[in-house]
Amino acid sequence: MSTLINQIATVALPVTVNGQGLYNVTGKVAAVVQEMGIITGLMTVFIQHTSASLLIQENADPAVTHDLQNWLARLVPELDPLYTHTEEGPDDMPAHIKSALTTVSLSVPVVDSRLALGTWQGIFLWEHRHNVKQRRILVTGVGA
Amino acid sequence: MSTLINQIATVALPVTVNGQGLYNVTGKVAAVVQEMGIITGLMTVFIQHTSASLLIQENADPAVTHDLQNWLARLVPELDPLYTHTEEGPDDMPAHIKSALTTVSLSVPVVDSRLALGTWQGIFLWEHRHNVKQRRILVTGVGA
Amino acid sequence: MSTLINQIATVALPVTVNGQGLYNVTGKVAAVVQEMGIITGLMTVFIQHTSASLLIQENADPAVTHDLQNWLARLVPELDPLYTHTEEGPDDMPAHIKSALTTVSLSVPVVDSRLALGTWQGIFLWEHRHNVKQRRILVTGVGA
Repeated sequence: MSTLINQIATVALPVTVNGQGLYNVTGKVAAVVQEMGIITGLMTVFIQHTSASLLIQENADPAVTHDLQNWLARLVPELDPLYTHTEEGPDDMPAHIKSALTTVSLSVPVVDSRLALGTWQGIFLWEHRHNVKQRRILVTGVGA
Repeated sequence: MSTLINQIATVALPVTVNGQGLYNVTGKVAAVVQEMGIITGLMTVFIQHTSASLLIQENADPAVTHDLQNWLARLVPELDPLYTHTEEGPDDMPAHIKSALTTVSLSVPVVDSRLALGTWQGIFLWEHRHNVKQRRILVTGVGA
Repeated sequence: MSTLINQIATVALPVTVNGQGLYNVTGKVAAVVQEMGIITGLMTVFIQHTSASLLIQENADPAVTHDLQNWLARLVPELDPLYTHTEEGPDDMPAHIKSALTTVSLSVPVVDSRLALGTWQGIFLWEHRHNVKQRRILVTGVGA
């Protein structure tokens, strides 16, 4: 059942963003699987930021990511008088909270040289700030 | 201190569900540890869906999972006028949001041939839809 | 691009806490990287509890963790009549919910012998109870 494991590597990938929203990075992660030649393994995606996060969600109907975006914006509004960390702009503290409620690292198995995502799953970078243009994710492959 | 790592494998496990709630899958994951013969390692559990998720939570008092279920249902109600993704039923968009607030992948160390869970921890599949009957999780073992 | 993987190990680390709040454990995790001598790899941090959790968040301005703490306390208040699991104190069920909304496991790549955290990222244990004094995290290193 098992395969002899033999390699590990991390690749840094820049992701261009343009305001709040979900950016599909599945293709970028899949390209690392291919580049490393992993047949059986595990890919871990990590985002090096505290005001953007990662999410695996529906890749088919854009209404899903649209509603996710709006629901979270309502739960964590700007200009909440609770915030004391306000000097980096009204979208900064909500961005930290939104990142905390989602995640900065997630792992997806590789089976038969492919990311073993479900049919409707895509890997997204979730940008929570208005004016950031560039983010960086790290993709670590472990496998054979 | 370290052990020479030598194997990696992913096993797909079907999980039968019957409506919303938390389903304990700890035994299924522990069985993969045994089947692979991992003594020192790491198990990653991944769920291939966007309207169910994974959670490690208290395995003792069922009142905990009962309250978790009710609390999240109140936070993310059905029929919220914010939702535009409504064609798959009133429980579908809340299920996506609940999945986003929890997680689809988590990793547990293996120490001395056992999942190194805390005394009160169990691994649960959290079903967020009413009428789904079958889910699929992947368990990836890495170790020696 | 890849390195031959050769080791895996898990180290248990006690963390002393004193009431609710975020405790920076980055140094403890970094020490395991050094102790194991990992140059290229992946560190997985796991917390063996259901009323405390893990978070990667801003390590610079303490106002961020202060606001995170207060925001989550408002979202998940004590003495909510919804709770039926009440025998372990008013802070217990909120602690389980806060743990469920964050995470108990996260993974960080190791690149060039260092945790590949972003500039502003720290790894925190998030204590959700008032009177717990000691927690336990496990750090699993995989790499070469």
